[in-house]
Amino acid sequence: MRIKIRKAVRSDSDGLVRLIIELAEFEKLKPPDKKAKKRLLNDAFSKAPPFKIYVAESGNELIGYAFYFFTYSTFLAKKSLYLEDIYITPKFRKSGIGKRFFKILIKEAKENKCGRIEWAVLDWNINAIRFYENLGAKWLNDWKYYRLIL
Amino acid sequence: MRIKIRKAVRSDSDGLVRLIIELAEFEKLKPPDKKAKKRLLNDAFSKAPPFKIYVAESGNELIGYAFYFFTYSTFLAKKSLYLEDIYITPKFRKSGIGKRFFKILIKEAKENKCGRIEWAVLDWNINAIRFYENLGAKWLNDWKYYRLIL
Repeated sequence: MRIKIRKAVRSDSDGLVRLIIELAEFEKLKPPDKKAKKRLLNDAFSKAPPFKIYVAESGNELIGYAFYFFTYSTFLAKKSLYLEDIYITPKFRKSGIGKRFFKILIKEAKENKCGRIEWAVLDWNINAIRFYENLGAKWLNDWKYYRLIL
Repeated sequence: MRIKIRKAVRSDSDGLVRLIIELAEFEKLKPPDKKAKKRLLNDAFSKAPPFKIYVAESGNELIGYAFYFFTYSTFLAKKSLYLEDIYITPKFRKSGIGKRFFKILIKEAKENKCGRIEWAVLDWNINAIRFYENLGAKWLNDWKYYRLIL
């Protein structure tokens, strides 16, 4: 079955929510609740969306997605593309879809004059880490990331 | 001397560049070159700046700054405030300016309905780490951050 990667549209909402819940389960994190799902879809398809979405489609079914936005490096004085989520449903893994997503993201980042693409991965997710290192990405091992919950 | 924290304006350009170079030296990172400085200031004071700046001022001299922008958490379905740089020149440290910056950033984040404030710190910067932990921030120790240079 041919896999198509394209920008998300509002009619992808149900498929996106299903995949986001799959990713949260995979990452052992709390999935968005009912209110958060509604907010997320409203934000995603608003006039000035705070993030952008590519989806991968097989037939009429969504089988993966990538959420990203632009950040900024003050030392480079260039934008970065920050990949907030990338997910491919298990039965479609190991078939080159992740590489195709990254190829599109690299193109998108270059078109937006970014100097870097950045993202985070859970430390036990060895398959993803191997994939990222094969892409030539480097672990920022001398930086510690902090969070203040409001 | 009274310290004032306020939003940056274009006439802060020289002071900002001086402080950014100080931070790069402190972090043992490559400071922005001539072209990058120009791009940074053009971006900072453009019509749709990709980041926002607070500065701390003592008399007519800039003595610190914070650069931030908004990112997005898909699981929370809320924006986050990402603090790209925070810097206070050495002789003004340990006098509560960092806490005042964070108080303003927390207010700004809440006004923008953010769920979190996030940032990165170099692992040898023990004084900063102690300061962040005293604020109640948590190290995201199970996440690895990756970068692909374009």
